[in-house]
Amino acid sequence: MRIVIALGGNALGNTLTEQMTAVKHTASAIVDLIEQGHEVIVSHGNGPQVGMIHHAVNELTHVVEQDFPVIPLSVCVAMSQSYIGYDLQNAIREELLNRSIVKPCATVITQVIVDPNDPAFQNPSKPIGRFMSEQEAKKLAKEKGYQVMEDAGRGWRRVVASPKPLDIVEIDTVRSLFQAGQVVIAGGGGGIPVISQGNHLKGTSAVIDKDFCSCLMAELVNADLLIILTAVEKCAINFGKPNQKWLDNITVNQAKEYCKQGHFATGSMLPKVQAAIKFAESKKDRKSLITLLEKAKDGIDGKTGTIIYNS
Amino acid sequence: MRIVIALGGNALGNTLTEQMTAVKHTASAIVDLIEQGHEVIVSHGNGPQVGMIHHAVNELTHVVEQDFPVIPLSVCVAMSQSYIGYDLQNAIREELLNRSIVKPCATVITQVIVDPNDPAFQNPSKPIGRFMSEQEAKKLAKEKGYQVMEDAGRGWRRVVASPKPLDIVEIDTVRSLFQAGQVVIAGGGGGIPVISQGNHLKGTSAVIDKDFCSCLMAELVNADLLIILTAVEKCAINFGKPNQKWLDNITVNQAKEYCKQGHFATGSMLPKVQAAIKFAESKKDRKSLITLLEKAKDGIDGKTGTIIYNS
Repeated sequence: MRIVIALGGNALGNTLTEQMTAVKHTASAIVDLIEQGHEVIVSHGNGPQVGMIHHAVNELTHVVEQDFPVIPLSVCVAMSQSYIGYDLQNAIREELLNRSIVKPCATVITQVIVDPNDPAFQNPSKPIGRFMSEQEAKKLAKEKGYQVMEDAGRGWRRVVASPKPLDIVEIDTVRSLFQAGQVVIAGGGGGIPVISQGNHLKGTSAVIDKDFCSCLMAELVNADLLIILTAVEKCAINFGKPNQKWLDNITVNQAKEYCKQGHFATGSMLPKVQAAIKFAESKKDRKSLITLLEKAKDGIDGKTGTIIYNS
Repeated sequence: MRIVIALGGNALGNTLTEQMTAVKHTASAIVDLIEQGHEVIVSHGNGPQVGMIHHAVNELTHVVEQDFPVIPLSVCVAMSQSYIGYDLQNAIREELLNRSIVKPCATVITQVIVDPNDPAFQNPSKPIGRFMSEQEAKKLAKEKGYQVMEDAGRGWRRVVASPKPLDIVEIDTVRSLFQAGQVVIAGGGGGIPVISQGNHLKGTSAVIDKDFCSCLMAELVNADLLIILTAVEKCAINFGKPNQKWLDNITVNQAKEYCKQGHFATGSMLPKVQAAIKFAESKKDRKSLITLLEKAKDGIDGKTGTIIYNS
C-alpha cells in the first residue's frame, strides 16, 4: 500500500531534546510499515515549533534589537520544516539502517496554495506555540494584538488563520522521490501557505492544518491509506461521558453524522475526522485510519484504531 | 552539460527584502542555463543568514528569556536552508514559468558528513553573520567567547569551524530529482555538518564551506562543470596591484601555483579556487568556472570568467 502518515506537531515535543526522543519512537513506528513493504510519505504538524520560532525571531529579538528584520509567519513555517525534518529524516534513516534497509529519506520544503479569499483569514482558529494560562494569553493578546483561544482543554494558545489547502506546489518532487523508492517527508506543518499571483507565489501569514494538507497530499499521490496519528488509540463519541463509545470501523456517512452531532473537539479531533472523511470519500477503496503512533501497524492489520471507509 | 552552481550567501542579501530581490536576478541567470538545455543543481552559501538566525535564537532571545532552549548551530544551518531555499525555489519556478518551461524546482534539506578529528575544529576560520567594526567584534568576542576575525577587507565577523565535507547524506535524493528532470537546490550553506557515529548522525557546531560542498556534490553527481559565482568577473593574480592580471583559462597546475604564491584571499577567493581545482582534477573533462552571476552564460560559452581545467 501507498500510505501518507500525518504526525502531530505536539507529539514531536516542545524542545530539541524532546524532539530527539520523539523522532526515535516515530521512526520506529514508521519503519515498521516500511518493513512490511508499504510506500510511506510522512507529513507532520508544527504547532509548538513554528510558535517557538516565530516567538523567538519576532518577539524576543525585537525587545533587544528593535530594527531586527521582521520574519513573516510563512518563512517561520519554512524554517520549522527543516527544524523538524532534519531530526526526523535522521531518525528514520538510522532506524532503516539498524534494520539493514537501504532506503534514502529526505525532507522536501513544501509550499501549499491557499485562496486569499478563504474565510479563515477573517476568523483565526489554528493554535500555534506554547500553552499558556488564560491570564498570560489575554495579556499577550492585548499587548501584541494576537488572537488567543482555549485549545481542547490543554490550555490557552495563540491562534492564526488556517485556510484550506488547494494544491501542493512540490507534489511532482514528492512523486519522483517515492517512485524512486525513497521515504519522503513533505508538507511539514501543513506546508508553507502561499497564494498564487500569476506565476508568482506569495507567502501569507497563516498555518495550514496538517491533517487537511496530508489528506490533499494523499489524494494527489493516489495513496491507498491516510493514517492520522493522535494521542488516543481510537476516536470516540460522547468522549469523556458515561456513555462514551470507542469507534472501530465506521463509514464516511456515520463519521459525518458524528461530526454534525458535535462529538469531536474543534481544533483537535474534529479536523482529523474531517480530513479522514475527505480522503476516504475521494475515490473508491481509499480509507483513513486514526490511531496512536505505536498502534499504526496494528491499525493497518485491522486490530485497532478507527477506520473510516467509503461504504 | 550537467552543472552544479554555487551561489554566494552574501549575494543573497542580509534581509528577506534583499533576498527577494537577489533571488530574482539569480533565478534569471540560472534559468538562462536551463533554457540552453543544461541540467542544473543549485547550491548556495548562508553566511549572513545562518549568522542572523543563530544571533536571533541564541543571543537576542536569551536576553529576554534566559531559559529559552538553546538551538545548536547545526539546526540553525538546517533552518537557513529552508529560509533561503523557499525564496530561491519560488524565484526559479516563477522564472521558468515566465519562459513557459515546465520543470519542478525543490529544496532538499541536506546533511554533510565531516570528520570529528578535522583540524578545523581547533582553528575556526569560517565567517558567519553580519559585518562589524573591529571594536564591536572584539567586544562580542570577550562577552560571548566567540572567535572573530577580519573578513577579506569587508569588516569583522564571527568565525566558526569549517571542516572539510566528506560525504553528502542525501545525494541519492539529489540524483533522483535531476534524473527526473527537476531543478534541485541542495547543500545549502555547505550542508548541515554531521558526524557519523555508527548508524547515527550527530549535528556538530560548524559551517562547511559552500564551495567545497558544491565541489563534492559536483563530483558525486558526476557533473561536467562546477560554476562558482562570486563578486568579480574573473580571478586575478596580484589583485589590486599595478601588475594585476585577470585570469582566463588556466590549468589546474597553474592555479595551484598561484594559490601557493598567495594570490587569493583566505576566506574569500582562495577556497573558491581550491574547490575549482579539486573538481577540475577529479576526473577527465571536468572543469570549473569562476565568474559573476550575470556572466555565467557567457562564461560557459568561453567568453569570460576564469576557467580552471585539467591539462
